Amino acid sequence: MLNGERRIARPLRWAMVGGGRLGQVGYKHRIGALRDNTAFQLVAGAFDIEPERGKDFGVNIGVSEGRCYPDYKTMFASEALREDGIEVVSIATPNGTHYEICKAALEAGLHVICEKPLFFTSEEGENIKALAKKKDKIVGVTYGFSGNQMLLQMRAMIEQGKIGDIRVVDLQYTHGFNSNDKSDKTSDAQKWRIDPKVAGPSFVLGDLSTHTYYMSQLIMPEMKIKRLLCDRQSFIESRAPLEDNAFVMMQYENGAVGRLWTSSINAGCMDGHRIRIVGTNASLEWWDSKPNELRYEVQGESIQTLIRAMPYLDEACMADERLGALHQEGLSESWANIYLKFAIAIDAKNRKDEEALSNLVYPDIDAGIAGIRWIENCVRSADNGAVWVEFEANKELSSTQ
Amino acid sequence: MLNGERRIARPLRWAMVGGGRLGQVGYKHRIGALRDNTAFQLVAGAFDIEPERGKDFGVNIGVSEGRCYPDYKTMFASEALREDGIEVVSIATPNGTHYEICKAALEAGLHVICEKPLFFTSEEGENIKALAKKKDKIVGVTYGFSGNQMLLQMRAMIEQGKIGDIRVVDLQYTHGFNSNDKSDKTSDAQKWRIDPKVAGPSFVLGDLSTHTYYMSQLIMPEMKIKRLLCDRQSFIESRAPLEDNAFVMMQYENGAVGRLWTSSINAGCMDGHRIRIVGTNASLEWWDSKPNELRYEVQGESIQTLIRAMPYLDEACMADERLGALHQEGLSESWANIYLKFAIAIDAKNRKDEEALSNLVYPDIDAGIAGIRWIENCVRSADNGAVWVEFEANKELSSTQ
Amino acid sequence: MLNGERRIARPLRWAMVGGGRLGQVGYKHRIGALRDNTAFQLVAGAFDIEPERGKDFGVNIGVSEGRCYPDYKTMFASEALREDGIEVVSIATPNGTHYEICKAALEAGLHVICEKPLFFTSEEGENIKALAKKKDKIVGVTYGFSGNQMLLQMRAMIEQGKIGDIRVVDLQYTHGFNSNDKSDKTSDAQKWRIDPKVAGPSFVLGDLSTHTYYMSQLIMPEMKIKRLLCDRQSFIESRAPLEDNAFVMMQYENGAVGRLWTSSINAGCMDGHRIRIVGTNASLEWWDSKPNELRYEVQGESIQTLIRAMPYLDEACMADERLGALHQEGLSESWANIYLKFAIAIDAKNRKDEEALSNLVYPDIDAGIAGIRWIENCVRSADNGAVWVEFEANKELSSTQ
Amino acid sequence: MLNGERRIARPLRWAMVGGGRLGQVGYKHRIGALRDNTAFQLVAGAFDIEPERGKDFGVNIGVSEGRCYPDYKTMFASEALREDGIEVVSIATPNGTHYEICKAALEAGLHVICEKPLFFTSEEGENIKALAKKKDKIVGVTYGFSGNQMLLQMRAMIEQGKIGDIRVVDLQYTHGFNSNDKSDKTSDAQKWRIDPKVAGPSFVLGDLSTHTYYMSQLIMPEMKIKRLLCDRQSFIESRAPLEDNAFVMMQYENGAVGRLWTSSINAGCMDGHRIRIVGTNASLEWWDSKPNELRYEVQGESIQTLIRAMPYLDEACMADERLGALHQEGLSESWANIYLKFAIAIDAKNRKDEEALSNLVYPDIDAGIAGIRWIENCVRSADNGAVWVEFEANKELSSTQ
Ligand SMILES: NC(=O)c1ccc[n+]([C@@H]2O[C@H](COP(=O)([O-])OP(=O)(O)OC[C@H]3O[C@@H](n4cnc5c(N)ncnc54)[C@H](O)[C@@H]3O)[C@@H](O)[C@H]2O)c1
Ligand SMILES: NC(=O)c1ccc[n+]([C@@H]2O[C@H](COP(=O)([O-])OP(=O)(O)OC[C@H]3O[C@@H](n4cnc5c(N)ncnc54)[C@H](O)[C@@H]3O)[C@@H](O)[C@H]2O)c1
Ligand SMILES: NC(=O)c1ccc[n+]([C@@H]2O[C@H](COP(=O)([O-])OP(=O)(O)OC[C@H]3O[C@@H](n4cnc5c(N)ncnc54)[C@H](O)[C@@H]3O)[C@@H](O)[C@H]2O)c1
Ligand SMILES: NC(=O)c1ccc[n+]([C@@H]2O[C@H](COP(=O)([O-])OP(=O)(O)OC[C@H]3O[C@@H](n4cnc5c(N)ncnc54)[C@H](O)[C@@H]3O)[C@@H](O)[C@H]2O)c1
Repeated sequence: MLNGERRIARPLRWAMVGGGRLGQVGYKHRIGALRDNTAFQLVAGAFDIEPERGKDFGVNIGVSEGRCYPDYKTMFASEALREDGIEVVSIATPNGTHYEICKAALEAGLHVICEKPLFFTSEEGENIKALAKKKDKIVGVTYGFSGNQMLLQMRAMIEQGKIGDIRVVDLQYTHGFNSNDKSDKTSDAQKWRIDPKVAGPSFVLGDLSTHTYYMSQLIMPEMKIKRLLCDRQSFIESRAPLEDNAFVMMQYENGAVGRLWTSSINAGCMDGHRIRIVGTNASLEWWDSKPNELRYEVQGESIQTLIRAMPYLDEACMADERLGALHQEGLSESWANIYLKFAIAIDAKNRKDEEALSNLVYPDIDAGIAGIRWIENCVRSADNGAVWVEFEANKELSSTQ
Repeated sequence: MLNGERRIARPLRWAMVGGGRLGQVGYKHRIGALRDNTAFQLVAGAFDIEPERGKDFGVNIGVSEGRCYPDYKTMFASEALREDGIEVVSIATPNGTHYEICKAALEAGLHVICEKPLFFTSEEGENIKALAKKKDKIVGVTYGFSGNQMLLQMRAMIEQGKIGDIRVVDLQYTHGFNSNDKSDKTSDAQKWRIDPKVAGPSFVLGDLSTHTYYMSQLIMPEMKIKRLLCDRQSFIESRAPLEDNAFVMMQYENGAVGRLWTSSINAGCMDGHRIRIVGTNASLEWWDSKPNELRYEVQGESIQTLIRAMPYLDEACMADERLGALHQEGLSESWANIYLKFAIAIDAKNRKDEEALSNLVYPDIDAGIAGIRWIENCVRSADNGAVWVEFEANKELSSTQ
Repeated sequence: MLNGERRIARPLRWAMVGGGRLGQVGYKHRIGALRDNTAFQLVAGAFDIEPERGKDFGVNIGVSEGRCYPDYKTMFASEALREDGIEVVSIATPNGTHYEICKAALEAGLHVICEKPLFFTSEEGENIKALAKKKDKIVGVTYGFSGNQMLLQMRAMIEQGKIGDIRVVDLQYTHGFNSNDKSDKTSDAQKWRIDPKVAGPSFVLGDLSTHTYYMSQLIMPEMKIKRLLCDRQSFIESRAPLEDNAFVMMQYENGAVGRLWTSSINAGCMDGHRIRIVGTNASLEWWDSKPNELRYEVQGESIQTLIRAMPYLDEACMADERLGALHQEGLSESWANIYLKFAIAIDAKNRKDEEALSNLVYPDIDAGIAGIRWIENCVRSADNGAVWVEFEANKELSSTQ
Repeated sequence: MLNGERRIARPLRWAMVGGGRLGQVGYKHRIGALRDNTAFQLVAGAFDIEPERGKDFGVNIGVSEGRCYPDYKTMFASEALREDGIEVVSIATPNGTHYEICKAALEAGLHVICEKPLFFTSEEGENIKALAKKKDKIVGVTYGFSGNQMLLQMRAMIEQGKIGDIRVVDLQYTHGFNSNDKSDKTSDAQKWRIDPKVAGPSFVLGDLSTHTYYMSQLIMPEMKIKRLLCDRQSFIESRAPLEDNAFVMMQYENGAVGRLWTSSINAGCMDGHRIRIVGTNASLEWWDSKPNELRYEVQGESIQTLIRAMPYLDEACMADERLGALHQEGLSESWANIYLKFAIAIDAKNRKDEEALSNLVYPDIDAGIAGIRWIENCVRSADNGAVWVEFEANKELSSTQ
């Protein structure tokens, strides 16, 4: 159970690039990082592509005016000069800027927390991985939904054999907010998402399904995809070549099969993620729209609904518990959970406690690269006519994968 | 609203082949046909592969002993001699026997109601279609779930443009009762299902997904599959070459995409069918485990749940209403609905009222052949390595398709 | 498992009074009685207050014209003269006619199946009970929802101590179809319901909650109400003195407490019955809008949902199973279940097999009288200002209560 | 939409009394107050009845050691001497201490945020109200669930006539965690709850239903209870005279009726609050276990489910939105919402902006007193034998009631 007491010696001095007043995801970072004020302290920022708005915003959320910077370069340079300069930076800018900002941050000696999809190519990912290694720094990736502790419950139950051997993996992350092209024209956040120069090689595959893919790997780290096939579509034609809908089929090395649907044109759908793992004798199912529940369906027995915070849950799940039974948690707690793990990872890295690090399950650079590879494999399949392709994975996967 | 009053001049004299005491599906036929005693009257039967058991059973359900026959040939021959002989026969025997019994029934001048999957090959289907035409007889196919009137509501709403143009079709019919191989060894009904000589070229594709495919065509008759890809598995190896799980991906002629999951190893799943149709501005979703509900999700509006029997439903849906609001209907009403349509079709055919016939939406011989073709296309894809194949459809589809 | 095979030697010759073309509940009787054609055979009827419409209707549902009678007196008299005359009659007319028709039927030597609320006063109930005893006849009462076998599952689990001692009983049967007074003016079935001369001393208490009260007694036969308090309202004033909404609070002899809400002005509510029984360590909950499910909530354990037709259910529950797993049953099966029990009861009574009778759990004359007493107690409380009153129960309750 | 930007000029200097390491509710206060670091800053505390543990804890959550006080008196005295001393204090100690701490805080010139049930008697409430008025200070009460913005949606829809005139109010707040007496003996938080000297005149009526009562008043401020009747029980006898279960029936001045069930022995129930308001033409229903949904059931129309964060919601609801569509909020956002309103109220009070204050809807001293009166009325009824009593309400209710 977490109650806000410190897990590391002192809060880390933290800054953000992006995530300004009009940014979609910035507030989730702050909610996650600052939940308890014992893991991170927001002391600086280059919050906005428009410096003035960024400064106004920064001051409004409590950053001192002098540390509201016009751009990340200035910030990294200026903060490096301070004794109490920032130690870690989160990057919440459009995809196409992640690589250069990440690189600059590492080179400035900072730990990095970066939005997904991490970069455009896995090669970039490997470069950053090498750089982080050289600099002895953490790179975390904000697969924000993955912090829900019911996923750790699934992971524990699968590891303990509670569903038997995995046969079928059914993944979904869809919504319908782009059913028409209105927001393509009016929303800044949507405009760049369908521009390959900023978004990268995919729209929904990267924007949505990288989360889901990571969550599936978190839940069942032993499962490796062998081949996959992806069919992607641009139902709003002006989005081409980027897709607003895609189906993926997977074949795993152990003989299991899987499928994934990701979409932003699933009109009216408000459920977000759905994850179902079918084993030889039981299934587990979790929807992020019901984040406090987990269905456990043993063939031939009554259906079980496990409820967050109850003592019958695995200790790995309960370790991330905050509010207690009858009290609903939501996405903000997911973010708080992963940000707390980032803090613990950074602290361990700073203390050179590699053992602590290796025991920590969190979305690290390998998880980020794995997400890029997921996109690469899907796009390769789709662009060859929705054919089966051998799955190219990270060369060495971290223990958490 | 239906209340049991006759829809045809007098009940048809009806017999069954199969569907005996231990048969799984026989009771559903009787429940469907005899709901009101104004459409069918059960007067004869060759209910069982074991004649004695069949006779004992027949008598127990009210058939006079003399009309409980040892086999279908005897029944067709004997009944042909009676003035009050049977007019229509239902076939509820294992798949491998359907063709010869259908043929014999038509040749004996009977209308036929046959279980799905209709036959092993579409060629057989075309033969029977030709024979039925020659004999001026109806062949109905018992896609039993398709009688749920909420499907007609979906059909009406789609036709009326309530969801816009269809983009995504998501179909599922899965259960987990064959997660292990226990019943393969102990249940007669399961033994034949995994024997290609009796089951035909597929297990779950035929046993389960032919229903779902038909229902999808019922709901959206204008949608034609162009290409599909099927990956099928035998998780219990002894079931090979027949599959206990399959994924299908579809591309429709109008640019829509679809997918279907059928399985008997989806451990713990008790939901049966799930059908979701996504249009440009809204989606419709129906689960057979919630047969009295239909979800209508308009993007940007509150989610709507339409409830069976309510006056806001389409008249096509209300026409099949029986119990009224607050009173749950279930699978028995679905069967009653399709059997009533069989009766009306037979009556119209007898009266040579082709106009009435052409206005009637029910699972006819073309629907049966379409189901076989569905299997053929899936198997062709799967057996070529889960590749895309051009979809071969019925040459001429009836208006109901 | 039931499959339609006969449970009694031959079907009973059955007639109906009321339940004509426009009657609300008549079709449910026929659906229940005639499910399998092995329990009842509909051979005569006085279906309608308007004789011509009744005859036309009777013929349409397959009764021979000569046995479609203008009124019940003629029917009882004429049928008594036939060798193949009716043996049992169902009464599906407005409440105010039940007593005289019941009496006439018993005096004509018939078994009786009568709608609820049985009569206006418990005294009338005791009279009919005495008459039935004298005539050695069965009087059954069509608490139609009570046939759902999941209620027997609840009964078995409670008896087996699966929830511990009962502490709280929470009952609800509400709808919103009378939220305004439109149907008071337009619907025949509604007009008489708010006329005390025809409806008796209550509207929703009798129309709705007598079902629920019986179901609660079926589920937990040991629980006796000691005191109750009822507050009833006529939100549509023209319905006064009859209520369209009522709250009841109960205190049971064992120290448990209960409450019930019945309403026809619960706007938008489509759930019908909800029954929750709370014990010392677990609760059971059933809603008739989800007739195939039962929630079993053990304090401190994952929530269990028991699904109809699954082998883990009690044999008392499985005995009434028809369609099998994955196949939804609904209200028509509930009615079929109670009508089958009526047939078995009548057959046992005819065979003077009192042991068989005493083992049979079904809504008998005592259940009917208990329903009247329920109303009497509620009305007595309400009309004295919603005060606590000692609960007056049937003097001797049958084993099924 | 909220994104953490300041709503008041600078964060308030805030302290807590109670809410220490083992306290149940303390973390919820910090989560609520510190969500954005722009409303409150935690600078001091007397967190624990055991000073050492309190100090250790305080330091761990970031309070400087010198401002972790051994008791509230020392804190109020010491902080008064500082220029940067605390301005507002939250009280999260057992009920029996609220009054004296509140009084001391007001006398020390502090704004107060206090846990519910506020005090033991409404007289104490009026005293504190008078004192707060004299001192020109805010007293807020942490009805934590009431911050869920879907309640404001209900309030807006009711005010706009979307359900018509209110007829029935159905309230529930129950759980089963005290089904047995284990925690009575082992949990500190439970021990005092069943000790009248610390808990006051009630257990669940105060512990649970004061929330629900307040929420009902928030939703429908025009509705005034005229009479109520309460039956309370101590199913675990050692809890007597305090109740672990209670039923309440209400009659409102406008002719509506209501009921409430509160319990800690509703075994297995994990739903917390359920609120249903029935109007002449529609109903609204909200469960805190589904905090992102609101059911809107218009009689005769399809059931509507309104989803948090969607643009069709009322602006009063959207004003408290943070995470955006598809992103689940939970109890922590409810607390953040009410704490933000406390901050705004305090700021307005400090600025003597009575107009701003009067437009603010939040749980103020009157809401706290109303909660005490609710208990008093219920207990008076229950202890007189569960009889109807005239409802004694606050003499003058604030505009938010
Ligand atoms: N983890 C999640 O759940 C999640 C959710 C949404 C978005 N994202 C990811 O977060 C990133 C941002 O997405 P968004 O939807 O918030 O985008 P957005 O367009 O809404 O916001 C981007 C923000 O970054 C600022 N910005 C842009 N370029 C900048 C620069 N060079 N320097 C400083 N600030 C700059 C903008 O001013 C804006 O405030 C994307 O990579 C996206 O994929 C992740
Ligand atoms: N429409 C549906 O929902 C549905 C459901 C289940 C089965 N089915 C189909 O129904 C058919 C039967 O399946 P089932 O599960 O009932 O099989 P089953 O093995 O349970 O029953 C078959 C019945 O047919 C009898 N039989 C077998 N051969 C016969 C013969 N030559 N003459 C007379 N009787 C014979 C058997 O004695 C038995 O009573 C299959 O085609 C199956 O695909 C359809
Ligand atoms: N068990 C249930 O679930 C359920 C449901 C609805 C109604 N009911 C009960 O059934 C009874 C009938 O209710 P309803 O809603 O069907 O009423 P209704 O008014 O809709 O129908 C009454 C029927 O009885 C006929 N009738 C009336 N008086 C008659 C007479 N003297 N002789 C012959 N026929 C006569 C009418 O013509 C009509 O067909 C009532 O007692 C009611 O409480 C029970
Ligand atoms: N708003 C809600 O949702 C909610 C939820 C739970 C409890 N509560 C209320 O909060 C209050 C506390 O309940 P709890 O369950 O957290 O109790 P608890 O017994 O779990 O915690 C009480 C805390 O107060 C401390 N404390 C006790 N006396 C103190 C004193 N004189 N000075 C300083 N600290 C002291 C204890 O050390 C402990 O940390 C109660 O009034 C309760 O009704 C409200």
